[in-house]
Amino acid sequence: SQMTDAERRRGVVAFSSGNHAQGVALAGKLLDIPTVIVMPHDAPAAKLEATRGYGAELVLYRRSEEDRGAIARELCETRGATLVPPYDDPGIVAGAGTAALELVEDAGRLDAIVVPVGGGGLFSGTCLAAKGTDARIECYGVEPEAGNDVQQSLQQGRIVTIDVPQTIADGQQTQCPSALTFGIMQRYATGVVTVSDDELRAAMRFAFERLKIVLEPSGASALAAVLCGKLDVSGKRVGVVLSGGNADPAVFASAVIP
Amino acid sequence: SQMTDAERRRGVVAFSSGNHAQGVALAGKLLDIPTVIVMPHDAPAAKLEATRGYGAELVLYRRSEEDRGAIARELCETRGATLVPPYDDPGIVAGAGTAALELVEDAGRLDAIVVPVGGGGLFSGTCLAAKGTDARIECYGVEPEAGNDVQQSLQQGRIVTIDVPQTIADGQQTQCPSALTFGIMQRYATGVVTVSDDELRAAMRFAFERLKIVLEPSGASALAAVLCGKLDVSGKRVGVVLSGGNADPAVFASAVIP
Repeated sequence: SQMTDAERRRGVVAFSSGNHAQGVALAGKLLDIPTVIVMPHDAPAAKLEATRGYGAELVLYRRSEEDRGAIARELCETRGATLVPPYDDPGIVAGAGTAALELVEDAGRLDAIVVPVGGGGLFSGTCLAAKGTDARIECYGVEPEAGNDVQQSLQQGRIVTIDVPQTIADGQQTQCPSALTFGIMQRYATGVVTVSDDELRAAMRFAFERLKIVLEPSGASALAAVLCGKLDVSGKRVGVVLSGGNADPAVFASAVIP
Repeated sequence: SQMTDAERRRGVVAFSSGNHAQGVALAGKLLDIPTVIVMPHDAPAAKLEATRGYGAELVLYRRSEEDRGAIARELCETRGATLVPPYDDPGIVAGAGTAALELVEDAGRLDAIVVPVGGGGLFSGTCLAAKGTDARIECYGVEPEAGNDVQQSLQQGRIVTIDVPQTIADGQQTQCPSALTFGIMQRYATGVVTVSDDELRAAMRFAFERLKIVLEPSGASALAAVLCGKLDVSGKRVGVVLSGGNADPAVFASAVIP
């Protein structure tokens, strides 16, 4: 839904320490809408600086003592601003699906598309977009082995909540899908496979050496599944979504140095 | 000039340990032309593997004892193959210029274009292509401080030969431009500026953090010149060519870790 001029002037609020924060900040800059991002005070300096560099106002909080959701909601109330949640929202799901539309536009007919799964926003948006262009496209999601809440949820036909997953894939440390994303995935997803942290590192190394692209662990998960044979892709045209490059330098270095 | 069918069957030979090797190997694979690449036997395993992976036959030599140019010429004679030199060739210069054409096509009118300079193939091709689309475009080349043979040559109006430059920019350790590339640069180049190894590392870090692109030191040199204020770009539309991502993992890690 379109924002009114008054809503645009009052701006938007988001909470995230990663790609969503920087995406919202940059979108705000391009559209001339003020943005406030709620971030942990101990987030890496590079991420704070990048988000500020895209023109956002930062509100810092202490992870152990404060609730970022509550801070964001209070900011929205005080300022009359609009909350932009990271995945549990029809607009965000639709926006995430545009990557699949662009991929099909560029690459032509696909047999399958493979995407990283965290909260399920990207995966459910991809399912809707891909199936919308061609109902025969198989849609696979990829989770870290340590945190397969979506795989379990789809297998059991109900939302399963797990402990915070211990994995280098910090963009996929979600504990459960939302009702919105689960409903879409349940209807349209072909399946979910998992990859180990070592497989994520190998995919980051491949992207560094051959594609010259910086991927963070979560952003490399779909690529890892394809490279490590988790899906049968022989003879098929397969689209792979690389979804984030917000890598910590030390984590990146340890992945790419053999 | 187009190759004949017989020439295509006999294949091409190139010598390089970096981007040219992989570019020729990949082009051969796409065009179904056999490729032989002469590489140092102690080149990084990842580069040997990548070049082989693109379908090239490798001929390894010992840097200290053998002359790679002589090996390549002998291979060409024995096999009737075509030599593809790294820069001193009108076809290579023209091919290198296509990056500037694509940039202008995508980005529209530019006031200036900035490119890395090694042997001068990319820079002279860029000058020809950019000036061909719009004679007002300023064309700047960027060399490492430690090896400014092109800058000196243009200043003195003759080809200046320097010692092998000591710099992390291994793609720009050239000692002099060729007669072909010097002649083009002398006529069309606006100027050449230099950057330090620390400025190259800062540009690699910027590309890693903000662009999510892997750059090798030489590939980052034009970006470094713009970021470090070596050129007056305020209020101008400036195209910057990022020319290579064949980075050694350890060198890359030391550049991107703050």
